[in-house]
Amino acid sequence: MKITHLSSILIVIVAALFVSCSQQNKNGKYKIEDGMIVFNTPEREEGQQSVLQLAVDPIDTVKIAFIGLGMRGYEAVHRYTFIDAVKTVAICDLLSSNVERTQKILTDKCLPAAAEFVGEDAYKQLIDSIDVDLVYICTDWLHHVPIAVYAMEHGVHAAIEVPAATTVDECWQLVNTAEKYQRHCMMLENCCYDFFEMATMAMCDSGLFGEVVHVEGAYIHDLRSLQFDEETGYVGMWRLEYNKIHNGNHYCTHGLGPIAQILDIHRGDRMEYLVSVSSNQFGMSLYAKDKFGEDSEYAKYDYSLGDMSTTIVRTTNGKTIILQHDITSPRPYNRHHLISGTKGFAQKYPVQSLAFEPNAHSAMSEEEMNVLLQQYEHRITKEIGDVAREVGGHGGMDFIMDYRLIYCLHNGLPLDQDVYDAAEWSCVGELSEISVMNKGMPVAIPDFTRGDWNKIDGYSHAY
Amino acid sequence: MKITHLSSILIVIVAALFVSCSQQNKNGKYKIEDGMIVFNTPEREEGQQSVLQLAVDPIDTVKIAFIGLGMRGYEAVHRYTFIDAVKTVAICDLLSSNVERTQKILTDKCLPAAAEFVGEDAYKQLIDSIDVDLVYICTDWLHHVPIAVYAMEHGVHAAIEVPAATTVDECWQLVNTAEKYQRHCMMLENCCYDFFEMATMAMCDSGLFGEVVHVEGAYIHDLRSLQFDEETGYVGMWRLEYNKIHNGNHYCTHGLGPIAQILDIHRGDRMEYLVSVSSNQFGMSLYAKDKFGEDSEYAKYDYSLGDMSTTIVRTTNGKTIILQHDITSPRPYNRHHLISGTKGFAQKYPVQSLAFEPNAHSAMSEEEMNVLLQQYEHRITKEIGDVAREVGGHGGMDFIMDYRLIYCLHNGLPLDQDVYDAAEWSCVGELSEISVMNKGMPVAIPDFTRGDWNKIDGYSHAY
Repeated sequence: MKITHLSSILIVIVAALFVSCSQQNKNGKYKIEDGMIVFNTPEREEGQQSVLQLAVDPIDTVKIAFIGLGMRGYEAVHRYTFIDAVKTVAICDLLSSNVERTQKILTDKCLPAAAEFVGEDAYKQLIDSIDVDLVYICTDWLHHVPIAVYAMEHGVHAAIEVPAATTVDECWQLVNTAEKYQRHCMMLENCCYDFFEMATMAMCDSGLFGEVVHVEGAYIHDLRSLQFDEETGYVGMWRLEYNKIHNGNHYCTHGLGPIAQILDIHRGDRMEYLVSVSSNQFGMSLYAKDKFGEDSEYAKYDYSLGDMSTTIVRTTNGKTIILQHDITSPRPYNRHHLISGTKGFAQKYPVQSLAFEPNAHSAMSEEEMNVLLQQYEHRITKEIGDVAREVGGHGGMDFIMDYRLIYCLHNGLPLDQDVYDAAEWSCVGELSEISVMNKGMPVAIPDFTRGDWNKIDGYSHAY
Repeated sequence: MKITHLSSILIVIVAALFVSCSQQNKNGKYKIEDGMIVFNTPEREEGQQSVLQLAVDPIDTVKIAFIGLGMRGYEAVHRYTFIDAVKTVAICDLLSSNVERTQKILTDKCLPAAAEFVGEDAYKQLIDSIDVDLVYICTDWLHHVPIAVYAMEHGVHAAIEVPAATTVDECWQLVNTAEKYQRHCMMLENCCYDFFEMATMAMCDSGLFGEVVHVEGAYIHDLRSLQFDEETGYVGMWRLEYNKIHNGNHYCTHGLGPIAQILDIHRGDRMEYLVSVSSNQFGMSLYAKDKFGEDSEYAKYDYSLGDMSTTIVRTTNGKTIILQHDITSPRPYNRHHLISGTKGFAQKYPVQSLAFEPNAHSAMSEEEMNVLLQQYEHRITKEIGDVAREVGGHGGMDFIMDYRLIYCLHNGLPLDQDVYDAAEWSCVGELSEISVMNKGMPVAIPDFTRGDWNKIDGYSHAY
C-alpha cells in the first residue's frame, strides 16, 4: 500500500469520525456535539433587524380582534370592556355559537358590535378585510403561529396565548416574522402579573434576595377531567390529542415566565442548556379506565405524555431553573414560584413564604410577610390591582396583563414581553421532549436574539 | 487497491468508530455509550455471594464499639444507654478529649467503662483486640469505608453514618466485602425513621397513594456557619475541605432513603440513570467575605460546590425521583419528602400536607390529616415512638434507628437497610458530580445487586 493510499484512508477515517461523533444529524434539525443536542440556528435574513426594545408609534385607540373564543378568548373580550383606549372590532372562532355568545358580551354593554368571522381560515378574511392593530389569539396551540405570522405579515401586532409556539422551528418563525415586519409579538403569560410574583420581582429589584441563584416554576394542575370531557372540554379534545403523541413539558410558561424575568433572561443572562426526564404515564389510563371502562379506546390508548416531567435549565451566569409539568396526577395546584438568593428566599406554594438573612432558617410570620408584601407591592399592581381584582380573570392577573398590553401600545412603549421571551419560554416544549426521548441528554437552548442577549441591563417594565 | 485492502480499511474505520463513540474510556472508570456515562461493573469474585435478606444468628447482647465521637458518635453513645440487649465495649476517636467526655456518659450512668482508643489508626487496634459484634462509624466521610471494610474483614458487622461511601469504587468495596464475609453493612440513614416518613410508608403499603409515580427528597440546610467554624465545627474543617474540590450532591441520603424504600428500590424496581445540574457557587464566598474579610484566603478560594445541585433519577419501572442539595444558601430547612401517586399526594415541607382522591385538588385540613396520621401510624413508631421522643436525637428518629438495628441483630433478622441500599444511595455523590461536570450528561446507575434487584417483592421491615 502506498503512502498516498494511507493518507486517503486516514482522511476517510477522520471524516467518518467527524460525521458520526460531532454531526449526527437527525432529520437535519439538530446535531449532537460532545454529548449535547444542538439545534441549527438559521441565519438572520437580509431585511430583518432585532426587535429588542421595539417601540412603535403610540396608538390612540387600539383596534383589537379576538381569534379563538372557546375558553380564554371569550373571557378576554369581557375583560377588555373595562379597558380604555381599546376597541373590539372583530371576533372569530371555528363555531358560530362561540361568536354569538361573545358578541352578546358587547351588545349587553351597549358597545358597538364587532365584525364576525366563523370557520377554519376565517382569521385570514378577518386580517385581510378589517382595519385592526392587534390580534389576540386564543385558539388551540397548533394555530398560534400560523395566525400570528399571517397577522404580522399584514402589519398587525400579535398577542398569543401560551405556549406561543410548539416547536423550535415555530419559535424561529415568530422571531423572524417580527424582525422582518417590525411588529410586536407578545405571548400572553398572565402569571407574570400575579400579585405575589410581582411583589417578589420588586423585592429582587431592591436587592432583598441578594444574587438570585436558583429558581423554580411549575404547572401542576390536574386537568384529567377537562382532557377527557367530550362535550365542554377542549374543542375536539385537542389537548388530549396533543398529549397522545407528545412527552415532556409543553406547558411550562406559567412557571417560567415570572422567574425568567427575575433572572433577566436575554437582558444580561441566557438559558444555555436543559435536561429533562419524565415518568411513565399512569394517570390518564387509570382515569380513562374509571370513566369509560377497561375496554374503552380511551383506556387502552398508549398515551405519550408522562405524568411528571422535570426539566433543569442552566444559565450562562451559572443560575439554575427547575420546571415541572404534571396535569394528570391528583394533587393540589402548584406553580412553585420559588426564588433562592444569597440573602433571601421566597416560595408561593403550597403556602406563601418569605425568609431573609439573618433569620432565613425559618420563614417569616404571616403578619411580618404581609407587611413586607405591602411595602414592596409592585408599582403596576399598586396602580391597577384593585380594579383587576374586581374585573377578575384568575384573581386579577389576566386583567393586569391586558391593561399593560394596551397601556404600552397606547403610549408607544416596548411591551413587557417581547418575541424573544415568547420563543425562549415556548421552545422548552420541543427541547424537553427531545431530552426526555434521549434519556435526559442535555439540549442546548437556541439564542433567539442571535447574540444580543447581553445588550439590555436587566428586566424592566416601561412606563 | 485490492479488495483485501478495502476490507482492511473498512475494518479500521468500523473499529475506530466503535472506539471513539461507544468506548470513550475516562481513566478506565467509565465509558460513554450512546450519550450516557456508564461505569464499569466489576465481576462478582469467587467466594462472594449475595447478602440480600442476610440474617445471622441472633446475638443475645450486641457488643458495640463507637468510632468517631465528635458530633454524632457522642450523641449515639448516650442513646444506646437506653437500649437493652446492647453493651458499649469500646470507644475510639482521633482526640482523647472526645474519648474522655464520651466515657463520662457511661460512668455517669454507672455503666461499665468502655475500652478507649485514640489516634488515626486506633480503630484497627480496637477491632484486632476487642471482642466486638458491631462497629458504629461516625467519623468524617473519607474514613467510613476503610473502617467498615476492616471491620467486616475481621468478622464484625458495620453501621456507617451517611453517606456510607463517597465514590462508586468505595460502594463496590462495601458490597464486595459484605458479600465475601457475609456481614451486615448498614448505613445509618436516620430519616427513614422519622414519624411522618414512616406514616406515609404505611399509607403506601395500604395503597392510599395508588401507584407511586414521582417522589422528591432533599438536603437543604444552611451549614455555612458550621463549615467555616475553625473551633467547634467539623474537625479539621473536613467538610469545607471536601466541598472545596467536589461539586454535585454528596449528601443526598436523608432525602433519598425514605423515598427509595417507598419505591421498593432493589425490591422490584431499580434506579436506572440520573442527570444532575448545579448552579455556580455564590454562598460560601459571600459568607467568607463577610466573616473573614474580602482579602482572606477563605473569601478568595474558588470553591467547587455549587450552591444548588438538582438531580433527576429515572427508575426501570418509569418512576422519577428528584434530589436536591443546598447547604450554602439562606433558606429554611427542607428534606421535601414529597410523594405523588395515582390516588394521592403527600409533602412534608414547608408544611406537612396530604391530599387524596377525589378531593386531591386541595390538601386535607390539619385536623383531618392528624386523624389519618394517627390511623396510619407505622407499627414501629407505635411501638417505640414515645420512648424515642423522650430519649431524643433529631426528634426521636435516631433512637428508633438504633433500636431497630439492635432489635434485628438480637432477633437474627435482616436489617432495615442492607449494603445495597448503602451503595445505591451513596453512589449518587460521585455520579451526580460527573453528570454536573459534563453539563448534565446522563449517568447510568450501577446495579450493585448484580441482577438481583427484582427478586424481593417490595420493601418491608422484619419483625
